[in-house]
Amino acid sequence: MSAPICLISGVGPGTGSALAKRFTEGGYRVALLARNEARLAALEKELVTAKGYPCDVSDAAQIDHVASQIERDLGSPSVVIHNAVGGAFGTFREIDPSILNRNFQVNTMGLLYLARRFSPAMIDAKKGAIIVTGNTSALRGKPSFAGFAPTKAAQRILAEAMARELGPNGVHVAYLVVDAVIDLAWTRERFKDRPDEFFIKPKAIAEEIWHVVHQDRSAWSFNVELRPFGETW
Amino acid sequence: MSAPICLISGVGPGTGSALAKRFTEGGYRVALLARNEARLAALEKELVTAKGYPCDVSDAAQIDHVASQIERDLGSPSVVIHNAVGGAFGTFREIDPSILNRNFQVNTMGLLYLARRFSPAMIDAKKGAIIVTGNTSALRGKPSFAGFAPTKAAQRILAEAMARELGPNGVHVAYLVVDAVIDLAWTRERFKDRPDEFFIKPKAIAEEIWHVVHQDRSAWSFNVELRPFGETW
Amino acid sequence: MSAPICLISGVGPGTGSALAKRFTEGGYRVALLARNEARLAALEKELVTAKGYPCDVSDAAQIDHVASQIERDLGSPSVVIHNAVGGAFGTFREIDPSILNRNFQVNTMGLLYLARRFSPAMIDAKKGAIIVTGNTSALRGKPSFAGFAPTKAAQRILAEAMARELGPNGVHVAYLVVDAVIDLAWTRERFKDRPDEFFIKPKAIAEEIWHVVHQDRSAWSFNVELRPFGETW
Amino acid sequence: MSAPICLISGVGPGTGSALAKRFTEGGYRVALLARNEARLAALEKELVTAKGYPCDVSDAAQIDHVASQIERDLGSPSVVIHNAVGGAFGTFREIDPSILNRNFQVNTMGLLYLARRFSPAMIDAKKGAIIVTGNTSALRGKPSFAGFAPTKAAQRILAEAMARELGPNGVHVAYLVVDAVIDLAWTRERFKDRPDEFFIKPKAIAEEIWHVVHQDRSAWSFNVELRPFGETW
Repeated sequence: MSAPICLISGVGPGTGSALAKRFTEGGYRVALLARNEARLAALEKELVTAKGYPCDVSDAAQIDHVASQIERDLGSPSVVIHNAVGGAFGTFREIDPSILNRNFQVNTMGLLYLARRFSPAMIDAKKGAIIVTGNTSALRGKPSFAGFAPTKAAQRILAEAMARELGPNGVHVAYLVVDAVIDLAWTRERFKDRPDEFFIKPKAIAEEIWHVVHQDRSAWSFNVELRPFGETW
Repeated sequence: MSAPICLISGVGPGTGSALAKRFTEGGYRVALLARNEARLAALEKELVTAKGYPCDVSDAAQIDHVASQIERDLGSPSVVIHNAVGGAFGTFREIDPSILNRNFQVNTMGLLYLARRFSPAMIDAKKGAIIVTGNTSALRGKPSFAGFAPTKAAQRILAEAMARELGPNGVHVAYLVVDAVIDLAWTRERFKDRPDEFFIKPKAIAEEIWHVVHQDRSAWSFNVELRPFGETW
Repeated sequence: MSAPICLISGVGPGTGSALAKRFTEGGYRVALLARNEARLAALEKELVTAKGYPCDVSDAAQIDHVASQIERDLGSPSVVIHNAVGGAFGTFREIDPSILNRNFQVNTMGLLYLARRFSPAMIDAKKGAIIVTGNTSALRGKPSFAGFAPTKAAQRILAEAMARELGPNGVHVAYLVVDAVIDLAWTRERFKDRPDEFFIKPKAIAEEIWHVVHQDRSAWSFNVELRPFGETW
Repeated sequence: MSAPICLISGVGPGTGSALAKRFTEGGYRVALLARNEARLAALEKELVTAKGYPCDVSDAAQIDHVASQIERDLGSPSVVIHNAVGGAFGTFREIDPSILNRNFQVNTMGLLYLARRFSPAMIDAKKGAIIVTGNTSALRGKPSFAGFAPTKAAQRILAEAMARELGPNGVHVAYLVVDAVIDLAWTRERFKDRPDEFFIKPKAIAEEIWHVVHQDRSAWSFNVELRPFGETW
């Protein structure tokens, strides 16, 4: 079983699925992590080389459990993409504080658990990549993102601390700052009046992650920002 | 009881005590929050207008409880300084993951609880200040700060979201980025060979916070950075 | 003549005049640099301890010339505030390229000339301050500020390079990022419909600069940001 | 003549040549701008589809002149890469001030001239790319880069103002922040004791620029950072 392995957390209908397709097409065997078993089953059917593993990434024990399964089924992932995300909308006075805490568990602690579990094999192999999909909330606190932005900022800084440590070990950590609304059924519904060019395409995000994962190691990016050409920023 | 009230969380021997002195001297009645009762008792003796309230700021119920006591004893704080901090040293592989989580509860969730409990009265009064003492970890992830820096980044972005919301309500939120080692007994011991000018003085930090709290409202600072003149940055 | 000396470039009706008043009131003898002789004469009449020196700060020879006069008349400045500014409005396609170049000469080269001429005496005295008044253009390129923002970005980075070099020599360099429209006759005219709180007061900016110049040297700020409480940012 | 045209300024032995090769291999006809005619002649011999145009990019008239030649010889460039750079080493007290000014003319004014001359055709075509090669000096002022960093900061902010304006017109502006020493004969000589992995390869930079130029327009990067895997940052 010599195909490289790519693990993707948070395989929803958008970026996660597009990533699964891109890495499958690129010759990877793909391990999909999500809490939703039905979604995993559907993707397994669509992508013959992908395999789903039900998992809540905010739980280190569950990650450890599926990691063992993945290693037995497929082998050690050389690419781990933390795409699972807990979100929220509301000011600091509107949200239930437990929301901020929950998002921290998924977004930041989840990254820590994944990196602790999977980086040792990458370090041994002197290669590998850990990619985190984030957005501008990681850099800026807008009032209505009080229950979310802090956890993305924490996630980005954790990724940066990991990048500095893992880089010299041959393991590439990168953080994607997506500065746009992703093109999904529900966002199309919510932003009905916006033109096509308002949205960033999941496929384009996946393509960029594929590129970053395969950058020449003399020229790695940590911070990767993406926005549609028409975006006002 | 017409003296203004200042609440300070995390009253250790450094910045917290210096803040307590500065605001006491400036005519405030000061409420001190800390888990260590002995320390609170000692400070109460030293500062006649300060009153200690044992409290773990990572626990919303405890905050709510002491808030009621403070309001009864002193009145509503017009200044809240979140100086309590959970720290750690170690790379993401070295730390126990629970450390990162614990620091998030104290540093970020604690800020959220304090702000939710005390900002409504400030909004009603159309004035007040919430100040958070942070450091460069909030902006940069160094490998050995993996268990700490993410929580300061989260704290800073939460403060920013609050600042944008509370500013137009007359409530000033500011974040101090202290880019230096604070001058304390234990840091002097640890950095024995460093000259005086290597350290930032708690008294100078307190003076700066006093200044920020009293800035003309046509010219407020959110991000406030401080470093000793000799610091290489 | 034991009063400290403060040099201010760009003494217009706003920040420059407010600075002249604040430092005069604080016991400084003030040297005012501006190209407009009538304005200098008016300020000299108003502030008895201030003295005007006609000077185009984009011309190193003129700076050298007035510097000698100031040293003879008043002594060596311990505080230099570069407040002169060349501005412009227009996209990169709309502006005359010579505008960008001209603004660079005033904003950035002017700072270099002032710092080269006045910092040696500060270094010898092991104290002093060089303050630059800037704004958010230094951090962000908006389309209509293409003829201006690049020169403020250059100015800020030059100030930063100077700060790192002069700090350990006891000379404090700071950069003010004013994130607001300054309250002046012409801005009131232009933003007629805005409430008082939309504007930042020149007096408040001057007060802040006074504060920064006199910070304890164990706790200096380089980047100083100011905005009105009601500003949306 | 249906091949797309790529213009590259500053074609030295490093990034410029690597870019010329990459775009030639990718099917572009390449126009090379440099002051050194011998170098241009050598590259023309090596790359049959590349054509050299002697030009000092700090001179708008020269740019206008060669632009007309290029349009006549090859057509309108859809890709313009501003790689010409004026550098310097020294603190603000050590450098000759004219150095800072000269670097501004090449790095920042040169970009303005190129963009003004070539963007109108791109806007008409609703596509094209303007890429600027920069480095961390654009973000940080170190003492010894006082004659250089300010001009890169200016260049980056000018590029940002252009990006925001040109993006909605279908023209992609991106800024490369190279955080490393480029692998060249003279840098190898200067950093003799460093291992291979200390250096960033010109070929890898060229590959990244090729990628950015061809990003899907729903997912463009403005800021692109690159560093070798072993870089401590």
